[in-house]
Amino acid sequence: MKALLLIAHGSRRKQSNDEVVILADRLKLNCSEQYEIIHAGFLELAEMLIPDGIKKCVDDGATSIVVLPYFLNSGRHVIEDIPNIVNETKPHYPNINIKIAPHLGASNLMMELLITTANATQ
Amino acid sequence: MKALLLIAHGSRRKQSNDEVVILADRLKLNCSEQYEIIHAGFLELAEMLIPDGIKKCVDDGATSIVVLPYFLNSGRHVIEDIPNIVNETKPHYPNINIKIAPHLGASNLMMELLITTANATQ
Repeated sequence: MKALLLIAHGSRRKQSNDEVVILADRLKLNCSEQYEIIHAGFLELAEMLIPDGIKKCVDDGATSIVVLPYFLNSGRHVIEDIPNIVNETKPHYPNINIKIAPHLGASNLMMELLITTANATQ
Repeated sequence: MKALLLIAHGSRRKQSNDEVVILADRLKLNCSEQYEIIHAGFLELAEMLIPDGIKKCVDDGATSIVVLPYFLNSGRHVIEDIPNIVNETKPHYPNINIKIAPHLGASNLMMELLITTANATQ
C-alpha cells in the first residue's frame, strides 16, 4: 500500500497546523485510489513529528511512503533537515520504500497556481 | 497598467530569495499580457521590502497592483503583517487600486499541485 506523508514546518499557531491536517484530509478525498494512506506531519513545533508520521504510515500497512514537503522554497529545512530526519528513520524500516518529493516551488504547476490566485483577486 | 507584486517571507539564505526573484521573472514570461509589471518583494530579511515593491510598481506606471503572498498558510504574516504594511502604504497612492490576493494554500489548485508533485517522485 502506498502512503503519502505531507510534512509542513509546524507553527505555534494551532490554526496553521489545523490547516495542514485539513489539507491532508482533503487529499484523502481526492487521491485515495493512488495513496491508500495519507497523513500530515510536522518538522517541528507540532504533532506528529516526521518519525511518528512514518511509523504511523507503516503501522497502517504502507509498503512505500512519499514524504511530501509542504514548503515553497529550497531552504535549509527542505535541503537538510527533512532529508536528515527521513534518512535517520529509514534503517528502522528496511523493507519500506521511503522517498522525498521536491518542494512545491519546484513545480511548473506553481506558475498556474500563482496566476489563478492573482486573477481571482481582481 | 496592472502590476503583480509577489511577496515572500524573505530568508537569510540568499538562494531562497533568489528563487523568488527567478519565479517572478518566470511569471513575466508567462503572464505579461495580464500583468505588464511584475516584481518580487519580501516581508522581511531581504530586499525589496513591501513598501519599496509597491513604490516600484507605481514608478513603473501601475494603476492597479495585486499583492500576491507567496505563503502556504494563513499565519500571522498573511493575516496581519502583510495587510498592515499594505494598508499603511495605501494613503501614499490614493489613485492606485491595491489589493491583496489570498495565500496559496487557499486555492483548489493546491490539491492538484500536491498530487502531481507526489506522483513525480515515484
